[in-house]
Amino acid sequence: MAESAVDRLRRLLADVADLRGAAFLLTWDQATHMPPGGAAARARQLALLKQVAHERFTSPALARALAAAERELDAIGAPDGGIERDLVRITRRDLERDAALPATFTRTFNEHLASSYQAWTEARPADDLARMVPVLERTLDLSRELAQHLGPAEHVADPLIARSDHGVTVAQLSALFAQLRARLTPLLRAVAAAEPPDDGFLRGPYPLAAQFAFALERVREFGYDTRRGRLDPTHHPFAIEFSIDDVRITTRGRDDDLREALFCTFHESGHGMYHQGLDPRLEATPLADGTSAGVHESQSRTWENRVGRSLAYWRYAFPLLRDTFPQQLAGVDEIAFHRAINAVRPGVIRTQADEFSYDLHVIVRFELELDLLAGRLAVADLGEAWHERYRATLGVAADDDRNGALQDVHWFSREIGGAFQGYTLGNVLAAQFWQAAERDLGDLDALLASGDVASLSAWQRTNIHRHGRRVDPLDLVERVCGGGLDPEPYLDYLATKARDLFGVSLDADEGGRRP
Amino acid sequence: MAESAVDRLRRLLADVADLRGAAFLLTWDQATHMPPGGAAARARQLALLKQVAHERFTSPALARALAAAERELDAIGAPDGGIERDLVRITRRDLERDAALPATFTRTFNEHLASSYQAWTEARPADDLARMVPVLERTLDLSRELAQHLGPAEHVADPLIARSDHGVTVAQLSALFAQLRARLTPLLRAVAAAEPPDDGFLRGPYPLAAQFAFALERVREFGYDTRRGRLDPTHHPFAIEFSIDDVRITTRGRDDDLREALFCTFHESGHGMYHQGLDPRLEATPLADGTSAGVHESQSRTWENRVGRSLAYWRYAFPLLRDTFPQQLAGVDEIAFHRAINAVRPGVIRTQADEFSYDLHVIVRFELELDLLAGRLAVADLGEAWHERYRATLGVAADDDRNGALQDVHWFSREIGGAFQGYTLGNVLAAQFWQAAERDLGDLDALLASGDVASLSAWQRTNIHRHGRRVDPLDLVERVCGGGLDPEPYLDYLATKARDLFGVSLDADEGGRRP
Repeated sequence: MAESAVDRLRRLLADVADLRGAAFLLTWDQATHMPPGGAAARARQLALLKQVAHERFTSPALARALAAAERELDAIGAPDGGIERDLVRITRRDLERDAALPATFTRTFNEHLASSYQAWTEARPADDLARMVPVLERTLDLSRELAQHLGPAEHVADPLIARSDHGVTVAQLSALFAQLRARLTPLLRAVAAAEPPDDGFLRGPYPLAAQFAFALERVREFGYDTRRGRLDPTHHPFAIEFSIDDVRITTRGRDDDLREALFCTFHESGHGMYHQGLDPRLEATPLADGTSAGVHESQSRTWENRVGRSLAYWRYAFPLLRDTFPQQLAGVDEIAFHRAINAVRPGVIRTQADEFSYDLHVIVRFELELDLLAGRLAVADLGEAWHERYRATLGVAADDDRNGALQDVHWFSREIGGAFQGYTLGNVLAAQFWQAAERDLGDLDALLASGDVASLSAWQRTNIHRHGRRVDPLDLVERVCGGGLDPEPYLDYLATKARDLFGVSLDADEGGRRP
Repeated sequence: MAESAVDRLRRLLADVADLRGAAFLLTWDQATHMPPGGAAARARQLALLKQVAHERFTSPALARALAAAERELDAIGAPDGGIERDLVRITRRDLERDAALPATFTRTFNEHLASSYQAWTEARPADDLARMVPVLERTLDLSRELAQHLGPAEHVADPLIARSDHGVTVAQLSALFAQLRARLTPLLRAVAAAEPPDDGFLRGPYPLAAQFAFALERVREFGYDTRRGRLDPTHHPFAIEFSIDDVRITTRGRDDDLREALFCTFHESGHGMYHQGLDPRLEATPLADGTSAGVHESQSRTWENRVGRSLAYWRYAFPLLRDTFPQQLAGVDEIAFHRAINAVRPGVIRTQADEFSYDLHVIVRFELELDLLAGRLAVADLGEAWHERYRATLGVAADDDRNGALQDVHWFSREIGGAFQGYTLGNVLAAQFWQAAERDLGDLDALLASGDVASLSAWQRTNIHRHGRRVDPLDLVERVCGGGLDPEPYLDYLATKARDLFGVSLDADEGGRRP
């Protein structure tokens, strides 16, 4: 029997997916096990695999196979919403996105980003923003050109944001972030003024191996499957997948801070479980991925914050932690532990931020991105603008650029625009999904306190993970939560936490809820 | 300036080398870190990378670039023996070898071997040789077909052997192996009859992590560079390279046998140092590899046996070992240790064989291969023939096929013919190279006893490693040792060892030296 057009398309797409999976293994090894000498060849090998994958994905053969598959599905009257229709729909979308980019432009941009990243690794420790100004100016020009290639849009950042968060626009985000800013600013001010908890016992020392083992045991309970994954230490933790059945997570730890390994591991397990939870029929297709940066982040944030920083979960898990570190945690109970891991100390570093300030870090970056892209802010003024926004938004500012505009790798390793909104979308969505899960499962706190964490991950698998890219992000929110993006569940969660933990209660008016 | 033809060829070859390097990383990960769930996608990814590498190597573009480079070198009168001449010579040889194989044949054979290997992993533990007979018959047919594709030869096995050991023929090997058999048989009989040493203290228990750390420290002293490599545990140890600057070794250990981790690690470090010692100018070319299986094995055997099983080396290293395991080695000295690690107990397992019987295991296999290929032995009779040869050659036989014809993976995962001779060529060459090194460096035992192991590896680097495939194996022997393949240095080494360790001294006549 002749191969169907859809099967032929699947076969060609599987090769592309497998080339990307192989490239991801090279990336994983580079960050976990590679000896320093391996760097030069690894850069060549990675670039080559990505190039071969790109060539195959944009080949005439694949374009023909896609067109034939579309005709075939029409001819047989395949129903919308079936896996084959989703496959050709998403493949067509990706192909149009990739085909819109001239090969020379992509090469130029990638070469620029590689040298930009290299320069940043030296400029950041040297606190040398001046060196990066001309580099960033070029990145900005190329980012605008990228947006143009991707097609007309209301705002220059819209096509860039759409690459990570399909269907989400600057207009939507600006409204959402304005609401968050108005409510979070007074809330943060109030909790930061409260008496800080005693968290000295988090400094240990805690042997790293025991921390990693404890964290791994916990995320296995969450539902992260180590027969289809593993945990390794690295410098900058990430989750990465070579197939649906090999999804690895990484973490890092400090022997003088018990939080680092725990929350890094919990966070990455959320990303990892998303990929492990994909429908096996999506294997080696473009559908086998999270549907957006925001939805991906909602999963990691759920396990890091909603579970990992909740009192309910530690009612179950703290006795296990104390069994692991009986000396270091002598005289500490779950109440004290919960207060300690939720200490609020507004600072200048995003990745160390507590839940009350985290989104304000994101909003600062998002607004700066828009100003840069729109030409309202010159790159030469970015350093000072960063500090001003921090003072205005968080009430603190770094005294150098190292912890200012040079802080995050994003602008120095990818296009400017679309890099940060996913973090806050993730927080907002985590709260919306949590509410939906409570509707289906009942009181989640009661489940967590009993040690039942697997019900939540099973719910995520059924409602979110298994769909992969078959359901677009806003459609997924509609389907699971019965509405659109809504910051209220997230703001309610934070307000309740502020009240319970810090005795802080704001009038709705003061919070700007009903101005 | 336009790219020269040689530079263009180099660029195309670098892509092929990098695709193979990437595939090797996938193989390494599969054997060291991959979770079980990763197997299915990994098999696809590996097959795909190999296929892409093969397509690129045998592409018309590469053939044109090679022809142009040959013309260019002729036009400018490039000298023979220069790196460019070597590059086109070896590329031409590889290309002719690969081009001789029809794509359909290669695919058929690879698919057969994959299923053969899979079947063997089940048949061996089940001791089910009958199941493998039809599989092996097919492998044998395909091996003969492979030999035919590779070109006319005196013996059907010649082209198969040439794939691993260029320039070595069945005629040469038969003569060499006859000499070895004649001298080793009585020597083995004599040493096996000697009083066995006390080696109970090797059973420990010895914690594995400490064994691996000790072994790694030793091979770093040998010259294995961990800035360009690393050591990981695995089931079936190997060395593997992703570039000249990322060459990894693997090992295994038993807590009840101190020999396993030590000698596996020493062995693989020899392979690893060979690749790390290549001239950096050979990076990402077909010249960046060992020149033959035999020469490669000579390097691993040197460190495993000539160094690792010598009294001189342990005069230096035993105090370090005893510091690591003071309880387990209380009351043991380097003399007793040296005797214990050289205990001779003729058995049926090749990989556990002592130095006196090892080559007899190889010779049994080599002769069976020739008999199978020549049609003198039917696959159906292989199981019994194996046991008969063992009884005749080693005086022992297994009571099952699991430790008989099913023992080694080779015949079940690659062509029949050419798989085993390299091991014994390695032993013979190790002794010839040792003699040459003593000519240049003086008494190696004195160096080893003083802890100077780096002089030997530096000598290997200069005389053997750096050339890679630029010098063919027999030319290398001629250049380094001033002659051809010669078993005498090896036989002298074993005779001396038999005398010193076991008080065994054979008349030359009895050993068949001058019959």
